[in-house]
Amino acid sequence: MRTVDLIQRKRDGEELDKEEISYWVDGYTRGEIPDYQISALLMAVFFKGMTDREVSRLTECMIGSGETLDLSSIPGVKVDKHSTGGVGDKTSLIVAPLAAAAGVIVPMISGRGLGHTGGTLDKLESIPGFRTDLTLDQFRSQLAELGLCFIGQSEEVTPADGKLYSLRDVTATVESVPLIASSIMSKKMAEGLDALVLDVKVGTGAFMKKQVDARRLAQMMVGIGRRMDKKVQALITDMNQPLGYAVGNALEVMEASQTLMNQGPADLTRLSLELAARMIFLGKITPTLEEARALAEKNLVDGSGYRKLKQVIEAQGGNPQALDKFELLPNAIGVREVSSPRAGYVSVINAEDIGRASTLMGAGRDRKEDAIDPAVGVILEAKVGEKIDAGSVLCRLYYTREEGVEEAAEMVEDAFHVSAQKPDERELILEVVG
Amino acid sequence: MRTVDLIQRKRDGEELDKEEISYWVDGYTRGEIPDYQISALLMAVFFKGMTDREVSRLTECMIGSGETLDLSSIPGVKVDKHSTGGVGDKTSLIVAPLAAAAGVIVPMISGRGLGHTGGTLDKLESIPGFRTDLTLDQFRSQLAELGLCFIGQSEEVTPADGKLYSLRDVTATVESVPLIASSIMSKKMAEGLDALVLDVKVGTGAFMKKQVDARRLAQMMVGIGRRMDKKVQALITDMNQPLGYAVGNALEVMEASQTLMNQGPADLTRLSLELAARMIFLGKITPTLEEARALAEKNLVDGSGYRKLKQVIEAQGGNPQALDKFELLPNAIGVREVSSPRAGYVSVINAEDIGRASTLMGAGRDRKEDAIDPAVGVILEAKVGEKIDAGSVLCRLYYTREEGVEEAAEMVEDAFHVSAQKPDERELILEVVG
Repeated sequence: MRTVDLIQRKRDGEELDKEEISYWVDGYTRGEIPDYQISALLMAVFFKGMTDREVSRLTECMIGSGETLDLSSIPGVKVDKHSTGGVGDKTSLIVAPLAAAAGVIVPMISGRGLGHTGGTLDKLESIPGFRTDLTLDQFRSQLAELGLCFIGQSEEVTPADGKLYSLRDVTATVESVPLIASSIMSKKMAEGLDALVLDVKVGTGAFMKKQVDARRLAQMMVGIGRRMDKKVQALITDMNQPLGYAVGNALEVMEASQTLMNQGPADLTRLSLELAARMIFLGKITPTLEEARALAEKNLVDGSGYRKLKQVIEAQGGNPQALDKFELLPNAIGVREVSSPRAGYVSVINAEDIGRASTLMGAGRDRKEDAIDPAVGVILEAKVGEKIDAGSVLCRLYYTREEGVEEAAEMVEDAFHVSAQKPDERELILEVVG
Repeated sequence: MRTVDLIQRKRDGEELDKEEISYWVDGYTRGEIPDYQISALLMAVFFKGMTDREVSRLTECMIGSGETLDLSSIPGVKVDKHSTGGVGDKTSLIVAPLAAAAGVIVPMISGRGLGHTGGTLDKLESIPGFRTDLTLDQFRSQLAELGLCFIGQSEEVTPADGKLYSLRDVTATVESVPLIASSIMSKKMAEGLDALVLDVKVGTGAFMKKQVDARRLAQMMVGIGRRMDKKVQALITDMNQPLGYAVGNALEVMEASQTLMNQGPADLTRLSLELAARMIFLGKITPTLEEARALAEKNLVDGSGYRKLKQVIEAQGGNPQALDKFELLPNAIGVREVSSPRAGYVSVINAEDIGRASTLMGAGRDRKEDAIDPAVGVILEAKVGEKIDAGSVLCRLYYTREEGVEEAAEMVEDAFHVSAQKPDERELILEVVG
């Protein structure tokens, strides 16, 4: 078998068979096939796609490239939640404790932020003392005890995906539905899950700009799960404005805490409850989705989710008081207001621009090795559909150094579109797949 | 400027501007941009193409990446001929002396064979003593004296093209019209030419399988020439069967010699005369193409082309007697006949298969570093349209070692399609562009 022939066949729209996919994935992981052939193949995949069989095989090969987690010693149904990445998306911090409080075992293996989107690990690490570098034994024993543990991905899990992702990142081949689907599903399926709830974001702040692409991604991931006998459900949700009001690591922890105290923004609360309900239902805690929704809501209202998160923070070395006393979290030293030059209705908030502005001030990374500043970020003061006056504050930028703040302010101002007409109301949860 | 952004813009079908093209070509040539980004970019170009402006800029950058030849000290109009590569295509050996005998200055800078197609240098080097590794001074002085010199491409000319071609070869990005066009034109335009005649092959034995693609390639190359103020004309010619009867290095020298003695195959003679006429016309030797055609034919019939080739062979260290006494050329030691299992009309001779069979016996290279055997090859005994009996010899394989001969024989047998109906006659010269 020659790699160039596989590239050519994919380029010409043919389906690669099991052996051919194993050949290139394994060969690349072992360093026997050079980057320059795989990047050409990935670009061919970008244009020609992959069949369901191909994408399942790719996922299997990536899982097989490294270690897999065995959680069978822990009783209960293991369910995780994964989001394709949005701006201001702190649902993991809310959903995981709500589901765990209901009795679901939630092995939450998360990533770090890259580009304009944040990462759950970065957010949690803004809590003083919080550690995510647990051993596997610590992870298992906390899961058994509390039903929830947050941990970073081990480099021993799906190394093929790690290598491919790094290559995609520098070759403009990130935004390929089968490559995204197999990357997400390989990492999740290597965790020893029984079920998975996916939040596929669509809109200006998401990888998927169009609903049709988001649907294809959701269907592909649900299909991969089905062929591996795992229950997978996906919500397709709007990311045409940031979720909630807070964007930035410590700022998002604060908002997540308020939401778990049932004092959070309506959109964030609604989406978190629906995701938690799906986890509870797939986790077989309740016989119907309706009952799961009621249980999720109860766990929000009575504070059991909030208490669960505090327990988990304490177990992982963090200071749980930070959830009440926000002064214990890293705080910015300066605030810059951005006001609206005109009156009208907020019609669009370009979420990608808000994410980029936040990154510019240090909240995110352009490159994996960049350090982040947990204190900085953006707090929106208005959301889509709201009526504002000329001079109304649209949002506040929280910063720790002046550098980049003016540029971020301009970016944020451009992100807000104000129109004379009240915009049509937008659905937050657009579709359910699976 | 970031390379990944350029890849993404090309992937999304945008036009890259002058600075952007310089950035990636120069950066890659200097080794500052890695192979894996350029291979992704090349695959994006494969799918999205390039505008005329882009391909001209790419050509200019590749020319600028190395040395260019200055032939201005030699009086006369410098005209070269280039073929996109076919099977049995020995026209350079015929056309160049015919044009030079008419007074055109022909700086014939040629390549070596790769894959199923042969190269002019390899063919010439089957003549005992013939040298193509001349210095630039030797090249210039022979051009001034005889009007024709054959030489290999210096590695100092268009190094960017050399590097890109090697990468395309292993990443299934060879068959891209703008990449082929810029590769050919950069090499030719770096030679200090005034005009160029192109022979764009189309059919089973050519890179371009469809006439519409061949036309696009021809138009693109003529356009590149026009934007550089060079006269370029292209013939689009049929490569759905080998040209002439001989395929293989020494075998093709013999057939070229017979053709220059006006005893060659009809198709080869016709195409050679037309190409030579175009060179004579673009070389401003005659005021009209009709007069150029008459002069080319005169130079064939009266033997001036033949004598010119002998002079050139002698000047370049070869034995000119080899053109009369074929026993002075490397000869095969065995012959294997391939016969037709049935009677009928030859309807197709898959030229690529004939080329591959010839390569299999040692006439060509799969990789640049492979050695070739000048003696071996295939002589067709029937061409498309001919009536044959069951058991008629279709062709003869000339070999020097048994290895691969049976496989080559099967390949050649499969290459011949015999049908009950006489096939429609095919045009050899399909179109003229420019």
